[in-house]
Amino acid sequence: MLNPVTTAFETQLRAILPETAFKADPTPYLTEPRGRWTGQGFVVAPASTQKVAAVVRACADAKIGIVPYGGGTGLVGGQLQYDGPPPVILSLERMNQIRDIYPSENVLVCDAGVILANVQKAAEDVDRLFPLSLASEGSARIGGLLATNAGGVNVLRYGNARAQCLGLEVVRPDGTIWHGLTRLHKDNTGYDLRNLMIGAEGTLGIITGAALKLSPRPVGIGAAMMAVPSPDAALALLALARTQLGDGISAFEIIHRQSFEFLAEVGPEIKSPFAEIPEWCVLIDVGLAAGLAPNEALEALFVAAFDADLVTDGAVAQSHAQRTAFWHIRESIPEANRRIGSISSHDISVPLSAIPTFITRGAEALAALGAFRINCFGHLGDGNLHYNVFPMPGLTRADYEAARPQVKRVVHDLVHQMAGSVSAEHGIGRLKVDDLAKYGDPAKLEMLRAIKKALDPDGIMNPGAVVRL
Amino acid sequence: MLNPVTTAFETQLRAILPETAFKADPTPYLTEPRGRWTGQGFVVAPASTQKVAAVVRACADAKIGIVPYGGGTGLVGGQLQYDGPPPVILSLERMNQIRDIYPSENVLVCDAGVILANVQKAAEDVDRLFPLSLASEGSARIGGLLATNAGGVNVLRYGNARAQCLGLEVVRPDGTIWHGLTRLHKDNTGYDLRNLMIGAEGTLGIITGAALKLSPRPVGIGAAMMAVPSPDAALALLALARTQLGDGISAFEIIHRQSFEFLAEVGPEIKSPFAEIPEWCVLIDVGLAAGLAPNEALEALFVAAFDADLVTDGAVAQSHAQRTAFWHIRESIPEANRRIGSISSHDISVPLSAIPTFITRGAEALAALGAFRINCFGHLGDGNLHYNVFPMPGLTRADYEAARPQVKRVVHDLVHQMAGSVSAEHGIGRLKVDDLAKYGDPAKLEMLRAIKKALDPDGIMNPGAVVRL
Repeated sequence: MLNPVTTAFETQLRAILPETAFKADPTPYLTEPRGRWTGQGFVVAPASTQKVAAVVRACADAKIGIVPYGGGTGLVGGQLQYDGPPPVILSLERMNQIRDIYPSENVLVCDAGVILANVQKAAEDVDRLFPLSLASEGSARIGGLLATNAGGVNVLRYGNARAQCLGLEVVRPDGTIWHGLTRLHKDNTGYDLRNLMIGAEGTLGIITGAALKLSPRPVGIGAAMMAVPSPDAALALLALARTQLGDGISAFEIIHRQSFEFLAEVGPEIKSPFAEIPEWCVLIDVGLAAGLAPNEALEALFVAAFDADLVTDGAVAQSHAQRTAFWHIRESIPEANRRIGSISSHDISVPLSAIPTFITRGAEALAALGAFRINCFGHLGDGNLHYNVFPMPGLTRADYEAARPQVKRVVHDLVHQMAGSVSAEHGIGRLKVDDLAKYGDPAKLEMLRAIKKALDPDGIMNPGAVVRL
Repeated sequence: MLNPVTTAFETQLRAILPETAFKADPTPYLTEPRGRWTGQGFVVAPASTQKVAAVVRACADAKIGIVPYGGGTGLVGGQLQYDGPPPVILSLERMNQIRDIYPSENVLVCDAGVILANVQKAAEDVDRLFPLSLASEGSARIGGLLATNAGGVNVLRYGNARAQCLGLEVVRPDGTIWHGLTRLHKDNTGYDLRNLMIGAEGTLGIITGAALKLSPRPVGIGAAMMAVPSPDAALALLALARTQLGDGISAFEIIHRQSFEFLAEVGPEIKSPFAEIPEWCVLIDVGLAAGLAPNEALEALFVAAFDADLVTDGAVAQSHAQRTAFWHIRESIPEANRRIGSISSHDISVPLSAIPTFITRGAEALAALGAFRINCFGHLGDGNLHYNVFPMPGLTRADYEAARPQVKRVVHDLVHQMAGSVSAEHGIGRLKVDDLAKYGDPAKLEMLRAIKKALDPDGIMNPGAVVRL
């Protein structure tokens, strides 16, 4: 059993950290993007790995829980402990330095508190690409992105956060430091601790630094939006695009008409490239090597797809501004969803070929429960859909309190039946701990618990997240 | 303490498995490619996951060690236990079925005992690429390749074995089965057990099946060999190639003149593209999207590199046969090395920009010990060199018994000083257990031991490999 942060312990922390490491107002650290829960705890922001280690040692000695805090953009409550003894909330925001860049090695080493957009910018400044990209990139921090193995729009081509990381520096639950901040592209000495820490959501240690892998910048950038007659056609279009463009496809996103209707209803304002909003459309982004013209390639893809009845309408971005406008549509959908207020949001994946069936069966199963609006969009190329269920017009989230558990169960049961995942990219946090326990393979759950016990025997790291002991 | 396999236990195994699962002659399973050690143990080859589980349960009950056995091509003794109580050697060779292929998902699911070349072929048959490629691909099996996180020549572009795997089926040390054979490209539910098992060299469980990720087949394939004035120039050439060809570069291998001299001395026979063998050359392999001509691209690269004094001579393969001939040179080097007989072989990596310094300082440090021939070649694009030290002409490996530990120490100390890895791709096995203990970060070693104890408390899985408890 853990102890709460007491006034005496706060005094102890004030002896470790300077005044600037404390917050007059903890409120921003106790809320989360969707406003679902309120956290609790005492916020500190150490500015160095050594200071993080000192705080962790003090917490370990006193058996006080620690919630590591990055940009606070997580959607599953991993950054926010709403019950149990009040913990220390350890924000990495003051560890925000890019430590070194090695352009010839395609490596960037930084503190865990650096904001993603700043890493992207630093890579761009040396003519490299840091491909991790997602809607919250202006506030999400590298440590949190790695702790949650964030996904985003470029996973199809570049993989998720773990694929962008070469090495980590981690403060362990006893306050010792794992110096794993290697710039090596290959190192086969012992178990893969890096990937174990990535995706552990701060339950096995606190990431304080990372060596990130940069990529060459594609020379020819382009984007297109194409209307497709069905999700089946969208998958066939993806296969055709891969045949014609190889791994030049950076993103392949699907968007349902509901997204456009929400955007029209509540904003943000967008400009549709379609005269008539299609039931389904895709946003394709390409980054090609020198010598290839992205717009010609996308136009050739459109022609071939049109001949094969895979697309009915479309537009290739004729300028950088138009490409940005296409992406603005995609990136505005989460905000529109937030304004409408979902009954239940799901971040699911199924095997790629099962997506059309999932969409059909999901709609049927929900129709059997009642009338809903379904906004289905996301990373089709990865088999990952954001499948969110909303009130009918004129009603609100509050009108569906009773229905919510059923909605969630129906969707997750279907995903599980179809060999899918109930958290494709957002992680488990605290929101999905029961889902993991319910749907997880028993052998997997045993191993997760065994690892948690082995590496954090007192259970002080992000208590209540991912697994319960 | 583990127990040896006894005649009584053999009888017990014969009740579990059919006659075909036993071997009249265990000899092939007790030797390894370099002939350095002789193993011991009782060989069984179950033909199904359930049978593997039954054998493991029997071993767990009797506290008898198990050495998982794939293709037997490992170079660090991970497949062979030469001391301690004789174990069960569990060969996956009869689990050799490709279970399913999903071309539209770019996924192939197979038994762990399938030979790599057969996976490559199956992918090719559906117009896909399985990019893992290495000299032993005709005998190495998928389970062993994943257990050791094998590298090979295409890591620069496609990553190592772990990057090719979506899911695993694993028999745990207590005989229960982890059903983690997912085809999902994204699944963020709990710790990354897949990557923990990959690279664990059979010490945490036995991989019995894998879901592998296929890639689009590049349309335009090409290769060139270019003479470079120095390792520095080779790195600059790599950077230039990346600028001109983006991620179209599949492999970038460096070869020292010593390799050609060994090939001339002992074979295998090769045909050099150079009139005069240069001190250093590189082999560049490209796979480009449709619309790009690989030979034109390589010739343009050569011209730009020649203008920048980065290359002095070169040849672009004018046919598939010539590309194969180039690769034949590269792939024959390990066999030539074997025939010469190394004093000590090292599979090291250092940060990419440190490679030229490592090569200079390595030669100096060895010269201080005595006279040797150094054959340095390998995956320059990954910072991974095979740095092998050989007897002077007229002498043999046996003449250097006394020098061997010093040679190894000098090389590994230098690698460690330069923040490198003493096992970039071959793993730890039994050969490098002391190296890991000596050079490994203390916090890392503690975590490795804690994980091993947590997941294999009796220590029956591949005893003595990777970590000692």
